[in-house]
Amino acid sequence: MKTVLLLSGGMDSTTLLYYLKNKGDEIYCLSFHYGQRHSKELESATKITELTNTSHKIIDITSINELLQGSSLTSEIDIPYGHYEEESMKSTVVPNRNMILLSLAIGYAVSIKADNVAYAAHAGDHHIYPDCRPIFFDKMNEVSLIANYEPVNIIAPFLFLTKGEIAKIGKKLKVPYDITWTCYEGKDEPCGKCGACIERKEAMEEAGF
Amino acid sequence: MKTVLLLSGGMDSTTLLYYLKNKGDEIYCLSFHYGQRHSKELESATKITELTNTSHKIIDITSINELLQGSSLTSEIDIPYGHYEEESMKSTVVPNRNMILLSLAIGYAVSIKADNVAYAAHAGDHHIYPDCRPIFFDKMNEVSLIANYEPVNIIAPFLFLTKGEIAKIGKKLKVPYDITWTCYEGKDEPCGKCGACIERKEAMEEAGF
Repeated sequence: MKTVLLLSGGMDSTTLLYYLKNKGDEIYCLSFHYGQRHSKELESATKITELTNTSHKIIDITSINELLQGSSLTSEIDIPYGHYEEESMKSTVVPNRNMILLSLAIGYAVSIKADNVAYAAHAGDHHIYPDCRPIFFDKMNEVSLIANYEPVNIIAPFLFLTKGEIAKIGKKLKVPYDITWTCYEGKDEPCGKCGACIERKEAMEEAGF
Repeated sequence: MKTVLLLSGGMDSTTLLYYLKNKGDEIYCLSFHYGQRHSKELESATKITELTNTSHKIIDITSINELLQGSSLTSEIDIPYGHYEEESMKSTVVPNRNMILLSLAIGYAVSIKADNVAYAAHAGDHHIYPDCRPIFFDKMNEVSLIANYEPVNIIAPFLFLTKGEIAKIGKKLKVPYDITWTCYEGKDEPCGKCGACIERKEAMEEAGF
């Protein structure tokens, strides 16, 4: 299988890279600069693809940030602290982000004649991110199968797994989590307080790291 | 109704602008530079929005061209001459173009709290462009309705009209077709031989221009 993988450089998509490579897929990683407040994740994505000797493209679509206002991940709004279930975390939603990134990945897949586009949506995201829910995944896949002359299949192998379960898979596959980046802030060290840091810490503990 | 309109600057989307304004909709036009071989259409889009005093954003996403290879509209492949039904016209298909542009328009609609995203797919496109077919429209709309906290409705009022029928509507609405641009080439004058020129000429004749 030839698969385009949306790689953010965080723990979930990095684990997915190792998972798909372990299955024997030929992987083409794709990362975007879409106006995130920092480039820590993209630096991690680069290190990981270099380490695993995987094809990797980083595309700068910062210009679209002019269209997508209102998210604390791409604007000067304060990053909220807490768990994903909390109402305040809604400010981290970037309007229509996954549809945009998947659409671009599908276009790339058509160009290079890949079978699949993979992304690392998981059960812990369902509460807060509408475009990580199973219904979004199903409907997005339906349109992807008919939008071009050749069908592209969207896959999300972690869709029903918790972050802890993903970390357990990653532990078996020896994913180098020390070089992934999860924190919403872009300081030298992870803040330890934002939703992403808290969820990561709990997942790591669950997996016995 | 508040509507984001994908405006290319060609005759179809320009007619759609006049059509929606005539219905009383509040329109936000959105155009993209995605690596087209020329910017004639975008110049037309600017003139039209200035003439009609309509909100207009042009976003440069040329960087994505690195992902979307194989189309004569964005690469150094020769533009084919003939009707849309001909096999050679397939080279004008840009991989996953409408899903990408609609995804961005939906993100913009969420940001500005618009109800709809409109695009000017029409019956003459169905043969050659998979992402102008009714089934694509239906499935894209289904995902658009659930991808964000607020549903965005995709509308394509010309989906079952021929280009001639669109021109007839435009004639009634006094659309200034002389400032629209359709030709796939970007020379001083339209080439008169490419698929887009031929379809336009026939539509204009049908409408009695």
